[in-house]
Amino acid sequence: MPRTHSFSYRVSYGDTDRMDRVYYANYLEICERARGELLREAGFPYRGIETGGWFFPVRSCQARYFGYAVYDDLLLCRTRITRLRHATLAFTTDIFRDGSPKPLVSATVELACVRMDGRPDVIPPELRTAIAPYVEE
Amino acid sequence: MPRTHSFSYRVSYGDTDRMDRVYYANYLEICERARGELLREAGFPYRGIETGGWFFPVRSCQARYFGYAVYDDLLLCRTRITRLRHATLAFTTDIFRDGSPKPLVSATVELACVRMDGRPDVIPPELRTAIAPYVEE
Amino acid sequence: MPRTHSFSYRVSYGDTDRMDRVYYANYLEICERARGELLREAGFPYRGIETGGWFFPVRSCQARYFGYAVYDDLLLCRTRITRLRHATLAFTTDIFRDGSPKPLVSATVELACVRMDGRPDVIPPELRTAIAPYVEE
Amino acid sequence: MPRTHSFSYRVSYGDTDRMDRVYYANYLEICERARGELLREAGFPYRGIETGGWFFPVRSCQARYFGYAVYDDLLLCRTRITRLRHATLAFTTDIFRDGSPKPLVSATVELACVRMDGRPDVIPPELRTAIAPYVEE
Repeated sequence: MPRTHSFSYRVSYGDTDRMDRVYYANYLEICERARGELLREAGFPYRGIETGGWFFPVRSCQARYFGYAVYDDLLLCRTRITRLRHATLAFTTDIFRDGSPKPLVSATVELACVRMDGRPDVIPPELRTAIAPYVEE
Repeated sequence: MPRTHSFSYRVSYGDTDRMDRVYYANYLEICERARGELLREAGFPYRGIETGGWFFPVRSCQARYFGYAVYDDLLLCRTRITRLRHATLAFTTDIFRDGSPKPLVSATVELACVRMDGRPDVIPPELRTAIAPYVEE
Repeated sequence: MPRTHSFSYRVSYGDTDRMDRVYYANYLEICERARGELLREAGFPYRGIETGGWFFPVRSCQARYFGYAVYDDLLLCRTRITRLRHATLAFTTDIFRDGSPKPLVSATVELACVRMDGRPDVIPPELRTAIAPYVEE
Repeated sequence: MPRTHSFSYRVSYGDTDRMDRVYYANYLEICERARGELLREAGFPYRGIETGGWFFPVRSCQARYFGYAVYDDLLLCRTRITRLRHATLAFTTDIFRDGSPKPLVSATVELACVRMDGRPDVIPPELRTAIAPYVEE
């Protein structure tokens, strides 16, 4: 049974748009925070990964919006790894308004492992081991 | 042969991240600008659509990143409508570094037509007519 | 001795720019988060203030940058109220890298109290009482 | 009589907040675009300055908000250089709603000249000459 990472996020005024909702692109920054915290929990903070010479640029993302968050909502972000290949992986984050069982947004972000010069590389084995508990396939 | 809308965008310092690339979520704001300009060219500026009591919240988006833009790049955004249903439509924007034939990013954003109270509605016929030249299906 | 409010903030990738620093404008969104949390601590979450029919648009801001935060820094934001007039107030937030005694950034944001129609109004007495412990003058 | 640089900016949906105004911090990114275009007009695009090994981090900023811009406004940004010292300079940008004589926002941003290693340096003489027409003191 794979592990899911939980992360709380408070919606700022700056996150909202004139429809009084979190602007659609801003959920993707929230997802970036969430997967960063998953990696920290796994013992591999992303800053350290970059210091080690690996980078994980985004290759694709997709998001579905079932509802919307408003100013000051406390959001619960539940993240798991829904794909793990040799040189790519994907995080799926479901974003809930606190207390609600149905996600407002569900987003999947696929990242590629590259070296500092942009060359694709395999995901380092220690990282692969560390994130294994979060992998759902 | 459907029409494609062209829009130029200059990358700001604020758009970039520490990898010296446009942050992945920021391309989606560029796409929002691009489809807003398509609607203006079609004679239906989005502000006017909202004043008329219709809103088009985002239902889903997906983006693929083939390359990346850096600070001060002049980007060419080519947008067309790749889906037009009774109550939803989708814009696809390909973002090019000026002069290059291969897109850096290709993003599709699906919007739903709703009334001010959030109730789904059909896309107003005048708007449908105005955007028809951009529809590729 | 006035009270100072403490708030922690983790720098996201999206906050940074190509100089590998938090982009200068983004500190002001961090300050907005910080003063929102001060108001919550004082028992007057800003969302409730707006629900009550009062708004506090920004009238001026100023920031000095003595250093800079980088990706993944855990910032400590210390906020106090440095001006309280009939119809305006100012929050000053000092932002520290965790553990450092010298602020990276110090910003003062002045807000005006207005009614929903934009008319200036006096700050409601209950709010004035609630925030009094944070006022330093 | 010093020269003032003019730059047009269209407000995006993402720029707005739930008060249906451009979020206060976002005007500072607009100012960054405006001073970047001034430097381009002067023959010294900022990207080239950085390539040459100089950087201009922000040392301070201040903004006054007299009004506000809403979604889809076409803003006119008028920028001049209001301070030019050995190693620092300041740009002042007044932001107008198109056609209006009174600025919505007036912001001054002070930058320091540093080398790649962060050491302060004097502003390169060729740059100083190029921007001289915009200096108002």
